[in-house]
Amino acid sequence: MAFEAAVAYEPNKPLVIEDVQVAPPQAGEVRIKILYTALCHTDAYTWSGKDPEGLFPCILGHEAAGIIESVGEGVTEVKPGDHVIPCYQAECKECKFCKSGKTNLCGKVRAATGVGVMMNDRKSRFSINGTPIYHFMGTSTFSQYTVVHDVSVAKITPEAPLEKVCLLGCGVPTGLGAVWNTAKVEAGSIVAVFGLGTVGLAVAEGAKAAGASRIIGIDIDSKKYDIAKNFGITEFVNPKDHEKPIQQVLVDLTDGGVDYSFECIGNVSVMRAALECCHKGWGMSVIVGVAASGQEISTRPFQLVTGRVWKGTAFGGFKSRSQVPWLVEKYMKKEIKVDEYITHNLTFGEINKAFDLMHERGCLRCVLDVHA
Amino acid sequence: MAFEAAVAYEPNKPLVIEDVQVAPPQAGEVRIKILYTALCHTDAYTWSGKDPEGLFPCILGHEAAGIIESVGEGVTEVKPGDHVIPCYQAECKECKFCKSGKTNLCGKVRAATGVGVMMNDRKSRFSINGTPIYHFMGTSTFSQYTVVHDVSVAKITPEAPLEKVCLLGCGVPTGLGAVWNTAKVEAGSIVAVFGLGTVGLAVAEGAKAAGASRIIGIDIDSKKYDIAKNFGITEFVNPKDHEKPIQQVLVDLTDGGVDYSFECIGNVSVMRAALECCHKGWGMSVIVGVAASGQEISTRPFQLVTGRVWKGTAFGGFKSRSQVPWLVEKYMKKEIKVDEYITHNLTFGEINKAFDLMHERGCLRCVLDVHA
Ligand SMILES: NC(=O)c1ccc[n+]([C@@H]2O[C@H](COP(=O)([O-])OP(=O)(O)OC[C@H]3O[C@@H](n4cnc5c(N)ncnc54)[C@H](O)[C@@H]3O)[C@@H](O)[C@H]2O)c1
Ligand SMILES: NC(=O)c1ccc[n+]([C@@H]2O[C@H](COP(=O)([O-])OP(=O)(O)OC[C@H]3O[C@@H](n4cnc5c(N)ncnc54)[C@H](O)[C@@H]3O)[C@@H](O)[C@H]2O)c1
Ligand SMILES: [Zn+2]
Ligand SMILES: [Zn+2]
Ligand SMILES: [Zn+2]
Ligand SMILES: [Zn+2]
Repeated sequence: MAFEAAVAYEPNKPLVIEDVQVAPPQAGEVRIKILYTALCHTDAYTWSGKDPEGLFPCILGHEAAGIIESVGEGVTEVKPGDHVIPCYQAECKECKFCKSGKTNLCGKVRAATGVGVMMNDRKSRFSINGTPIYHFMGTSTFSQYTVVHDVSVAKITPEAPLEKVCLLGCGVPTGLGAVWNTAKVEAGSIVAVFGLGTVGLAVAEGAKAAGASRIIGIDIDSKKYDIAKNFGITEFVNPKDHEKPIQQVLVDLTDGGVDYSFECIGNVSVMRAALECCHKGWGMSVIVGVAASGQEISTRPFQLVTGRVWKGTAFGGFKSRSQVPWLVEKYMKKEIKVDEYITHNLTFGEINKAFDLMHERGCLRCVLDVHA
Repeated sequence: MAFEAAVAYEPNKPLVIEDVQVAPPQAGEVRIKILYTALCHTDAYTWSGKDPEGLFPCILGHEAAGIIESVGEGVTEVKPGDHVIPCYQAECKECKFCKSGKTNLCGKVRAATGVGVMMNDRKSRFSINGTPIYHFMGTSTFSQYTVVHDVSVAKITPEAPLEKVCLLGCGVPTGLGAVWNTAKVEAGSIVAVFGLGTVGLAVAEGAKAAGASRIIGIDIDSKKYDIAKNFGITEFVNPKDHEKPIQQVLVDLTDGGVDYSFECIGNVSVMRAALECCHKGWGMSVIVGVAASGQEISTRPFQLVTGRVWKGTAFGGFKSRSQVPWLVEKYMKKEIKVDEYITHNLTFGEINKAFDLMHERGCLRCVLDVHA
């Protein structure tokens, strides 16, 4: 089968929409017709060439929704026609990680997805004239068809609008889960959210649902304030308006510090500020943003000895196959927002424009119609 | 009243046993006849001059036991004759911290104890010929009599041997509580303990009581191994025996990392290693050691994003007035060790020798008979 995919040939060079051969799924694999995909910062990070583990040429993309086209040998949990969300975070339900009950970080296919291939034969299913094109994050959703491991696919209700719920493949669950699963914010808490992109706004939404009494949004883009109010932000602080370090501004605003803080930017200095604005004795800071390779966080150990806790989260701690369908249900019952994060709808051919839009103020998520 | 106290006139200069005036307790204060005091590394740290908040001249000491001699106005919870352990970590049961239910870090008297004076009149109760001598950590137990705030004193059963339970004023509870209160280690866990001094051995003892399956002790002093076995250490690793970084040695030893690690040294590089030897997905590292001022911890944020948790503990998270008496009871029922940590018994006059002994291999705690 040959279909269109957006190929990243080289770092920082525009993606090229090409006819790509997509091999049939092997044992434990499924082939998915991708209908809609959004862009996330991890795509842009690898595309930029700053990710030392980035492999080229590759097909990026990991926030998407589609329909199973065919399944390989031994695949029992999904069948052609099923509506699905590909999940960069697998869930095999069998490995040490899945069985621990303590984490969502499945180990089953990582060795392969980490190097752009499939587990079965350690090869790619994508090629152009016989030249293999690497997979990305085990999902590669910037393609009309993709092949993923069966442990990396969440079956969802066919009633869900795929052009919306594609967002439940990364950013929105990450933010909600950071609050619900990783921090376990309680009612009445004071919360600080650093960075009000999709992830930070989902944190705000999660905190509001958890009953937080104050949700302080911190962003250098003051355009985010109006949007942010709809997601539960009760106060807005622009670090540019203050001479004092932002952690001090927050400590002063909150009589000693916040109960929970979330870094949703990927900036190691902000990660430090997010920890240090936490209240002595109990404040917890969760790192959600992904920093550039090689960068390090630091603080005085006294910050931890006096009771602050430093954590992080991947995909918000959600178990992908088990919980993404539940998030879709919550969306269908209007218990969580999704539509509100979509600021742009574009065609597949406009994918490079979508990458540009990510850097514009006010932009949250761009959704591409992959077959338009 | 004039009694003997060991006065630290200057950093790094031998303490001088002097006749010191000890003023009567004011409102909310008690005067204690100290019978036995041990030495802890925080005393040595401030004495060394490396503590930028250290004030001289002062009376050091914070791990002790004694008997209430007199009480100031409004003191209702203890009376003369009561056996007590002074607690550098106060517990007022009224402040924001005490009422939070989330921390043992009481805020009531900190503003005064942090600067070597008493709350009531912001003055010291110690003087020599009218010259005030600073308090230390709100306890100053290197003195035959001391004055402390009533919120800083735990009343214990008069049957407990004061020459032993003085250790329950700092090091032993810190280690036990790091495991029981801060990390909440579960049965079957793999635990790494960095540094096998009193604090590290108490961590091992706490982990054994919690049912840990493996308790790996890491120390550069191989003399600690034989002692350590009695406290529950099941394996010993000397970083000097390995070329690989110690975190890698531990990851290899444990098929991916430990469930819980504890840094009981005060070395920021070891703090990093202690975090990084934790298992992806759930490993938790607790900083117990106190690093020198100005030093910072660092790591790649990816360590946290992939599920490790970084915490710290002060006095093991124990609420001092409420829980030190309970620890004394546990000791009386032989449920926790205390005697085994005492490697040296000395007279008060030998206090400078005791400071020297702290640097000797094999030394755990020196207990001084303050009136001998
Ligand atoms: N841990 C995970 O599983 C996971 C999953 C998805 C995304 N992420 C990461 O989360 C981060 C946020 O993703 P997003 O899609 O919301 O990004 P985004 O770029 O849309 O949002 C980031 C926001 O931070 C603001 N900002 C930038 N620098 C700032 C500073 N110094 N102080 C305050 N605000 C600042 C920007 O104005 C923007 O509003 C990214 O690093 C992304 O890679 C992590
Ligand atoms: N957080 C708290 O509330 C609290 C309370 C009491 C003590 N402390 C701190 O805990 C720490 C330990 O106290 P202690 O009385 O047990 O000290 P200690 O000096 O008796 O023990 C430290 C041990 O660490 C070992 N060590 C030193 N460098 C090492 C290295 N690089 N690698 C491996 N092992 C190394 C030493 O050989 C020694 O056995 C100190 O920093 C002390 O200030 C903290
Ligand atoms: Zn993403
Ligand atoms: Zn798994
Ligand atoms: Zn101590
Ligand atoms: Zn208090």
